[in-house]
Amino acid sequence: MDIYMQAAIEEAEKGRAEGGIPIGSVLVHEGRIIGRGHNRRVQQGSAILHGEMDALENAGRLPARVYREAVLYTTLSPCPMCSGAIALYGIPKVIVGENETFMGEEGWLRARGVEVDVRQDARCVHLMREFIAACPELWNEDIGV
Amino acid sequence: MDIYMQAAIEEAEKGRAEGGIPIGSVLVHEGRIIGRGHNRRVQQGSAILHGEMDALENAGRLPARVYREAVLYTTLSPCPMCSGAIALYGIPKVIVGENETFMGEEGWLRARGVEVDVRQDARCVHLMREFIAACPELWNEDIGV
Repeated sequence: MDIYMQAAIEEAEKGRAEGGIPIGSVLVHEGRIIGRGHNRRVQQGSAILHGEMDALENAGRLPARVYREAVLYTTLSPCPMCSGAIALYGIPKVIVGENETFMGEEGWLRARGVEVDVRQDARCVHLMREFIAACPELWNEDIGV
Repeated sequence: MDIYMQAAIEEAEKGRAEGGIPIGSVLVHEGRIIGRGHNRRVQQGSAILHGEMDALENAGRLPARVYREAVLYTTLSPCPMCSGAIALYGIPKVIVGENETFMGEEGWLRARGVEVDVRQDARCVHLMREFIAACPELWNEDIGV
């Protein structure tokens, strides 16, 4: 069991329990979780708080050095916005729960030198499949469709 | 005088007056400003509220159709995160105040079909040159350097 992916999944589950979109993320530096978050579109009426963005925001202002030594865990393949944030801060490694239900900008990240490790975790897939079946319009809104 | 770029510049000036980073943005739909904002790194201790992100957040949750008919004005060339948000929502046109002091992901946006119009507005350049000279470390933090 990867404790960091487990923490990201717990964030996703918390979001679902709040009536939101079940995507969670944690930012890890030197083995320690320094930011955690989940999608808050529904909870805060937010157009920008995807899970990864929420984790980065909750980590607060950090020196460039910390980002460059950090690993971002996310339950779902990161969309263009979240991938752009990863690129902006030069986060070198992203661990992705799954990309079966949504394929983000993994190719673009890899082309920029980011290591992207996709786990295809059955729990992450299940969270998204259940949600997309229950709330297809909300999911489309979150990915600009 | 472009009233939308003028509004973005006023946002940037407001940010500078607050002790923040002078970058502003407005989202325009059918000739009306539906979201406006400025960089809030200093004001809110935010790692994600660049000017463009703040404008998108303040516009609130919108249907995909609105984004696809919108124009985003920003005083500075959009960084990877903000460019990713533009791509996520399929905003077809971005008007950029200047790219002399910072070159964002304009090439990537154009490759994705986004129209990017750079004005090289002297007021935008002046705002950034003054700020970068006064607060180089804060500026580096904002662009992950």
